[in-house]
Amino acid sequence: MRLRNNPQANDNLKKYPDLVYVIPENMRGKWHQSFGNDHPISIEIGMGKGDFIIHHALNEPDINFIGLEKYSTVMEKALRKVLNHEHLNNLCLVKDDAIRLGDIFSDHEIDRIYLNFSDPWPKSRHAKRRLTYQKYLDLYKKILKPGGSLIFKTDNRKLFEYSLVSIASDKEFIWDDVCLDLHHSDGYDDNIMTEYERKFSPFGPIYQLKVHVRG
Amino acid sequence: MRLRNNPQANDNLKKYPDLVYVIPENMRGKWHQSFGNDHPISIEIGMGKGDFIIHHALNEPDINFIGLEKYSTVMEKALRKVLNHEHLNNLCLVKDDAIRLGDIFSDHEIDRIYLNFSDPWPKSRHAKRRLTYQKYLDLYKKILKPGGSLIFKTDNRKLFEYSLVSIASDKEFIWDDVCLDLHHSDGYDDNIMTEYERKFSPFGPIYQLKVHVRG
Repeated sequence: MRLRNNPQANDNLKKYPDLVYVIPENMRGKWHQSFGNDHPISIEIGMGKGDFIIHHALNEPDINFIGLEKYSTVMEKALRKVLNHEHLNNLCLVKDDAIRLGDIFSDHEIDRIYLNFSDPWPKSRHAKRRLTYQKYLDLYKKILKPGGSLIFKTDNRKLFEYSLVSIASDKEFIWDDVCLDLHHSDGYDDNIMTEYERKFSPFGPIYQLKVHVRG
Repeated sequence: MRLRNNPQANDNLKKYPDLVYVIPENMRGKWHQSFGNDHPISIEIGMGKGDFIIHHALNEPDINFIGLEKYSTVMEKALRKVLNHEHLNNLCLVKDDAIRLGDIFSDHEIDRIYLNFSDPWPKSRHAKRRLTYQKYLDLYKKILKPGGSLIFKTDNRKLFEYSLVSIASDKEFIWDDVCLDLHHSDGYDDNIMTEYERKFSPFGPIYQLKVHVRG
């Protein structure tokens, strides 16, 4: 997500150290402790302006949520929304990059990963940057519990095609469900839309894959 | 494919015993012998009126093709088209059902399977009849050589979603390619259309999956 850079954003994030983690490696292995309970932890990689994860956190008080976002200016938008909700104690934000997942979380610390509308990196020479490239799948498997799930959605056909092949090539993932038109299928009424999804879904299908790590 | 039943069809098929095999189990393990060469063998399961496999056989003289079709009336239509082509010595027809693949072909006798627009069997209680149900995948793995390929296309979204999960669950298949809109993608100019595909592709995307058996 591209926004005009706000040079104040980083400073503003630092004003809420119990909510926004800018040096999250300090929390590695201690996330349950920081939430003060042992509820399952779901993370969203690239949470953007936060609608999706805030909605989830409100709906599911017995799950802990962590939203990752690498751009300060974007994260500040999410922070403002979170601050509008009092007592949203099951959500915190991490300003960092997905490539550092193994530094931020200890092995098997996470129950579910949501990967929504990540950058398609359409050029072949940039395939390694796609968040479903094998290097990232290895990180997901490392931080997910056995049986933990990965839910990936996108409107980018090429990225989804690539991701299906990439994820099918990793035999540690067990496939639960594929949907090739999320907004026009029965059984997905619980789908929570991201800001991007709300804006772009009229222009074509939303694709979704659900898998879990071999238990 | 449904056509008005032609009671003469079966008799007509029997008039061409070197081209149409109505008791194909006699040929099990001897298909290369019947073609008089050791070229790779591709089969199409449910060839319908035959356009797809005839076109392939004409384009690829160094591949042997076998078209399976269970309905005599449909197969007779394909037969008539085949007879219009002289010297099409790399194609023969088998009147039989996919469930009998293991009786018709010996282990590892086949190099490639084409599965085109098979019956979606939309009701859950009929899932076992879908040609990508595990029972059928087991048959495909049995008759395919190590490294042999399965190419599946359909316009039925639900069948494709089901098939992606079913095939991903079989760890013996290695995924080569997924295409979620075959007629509007670069790199698929060699696609040969079936009669059904020609008729129905304007109404929505054609999906295709290519996999091969672990070598």
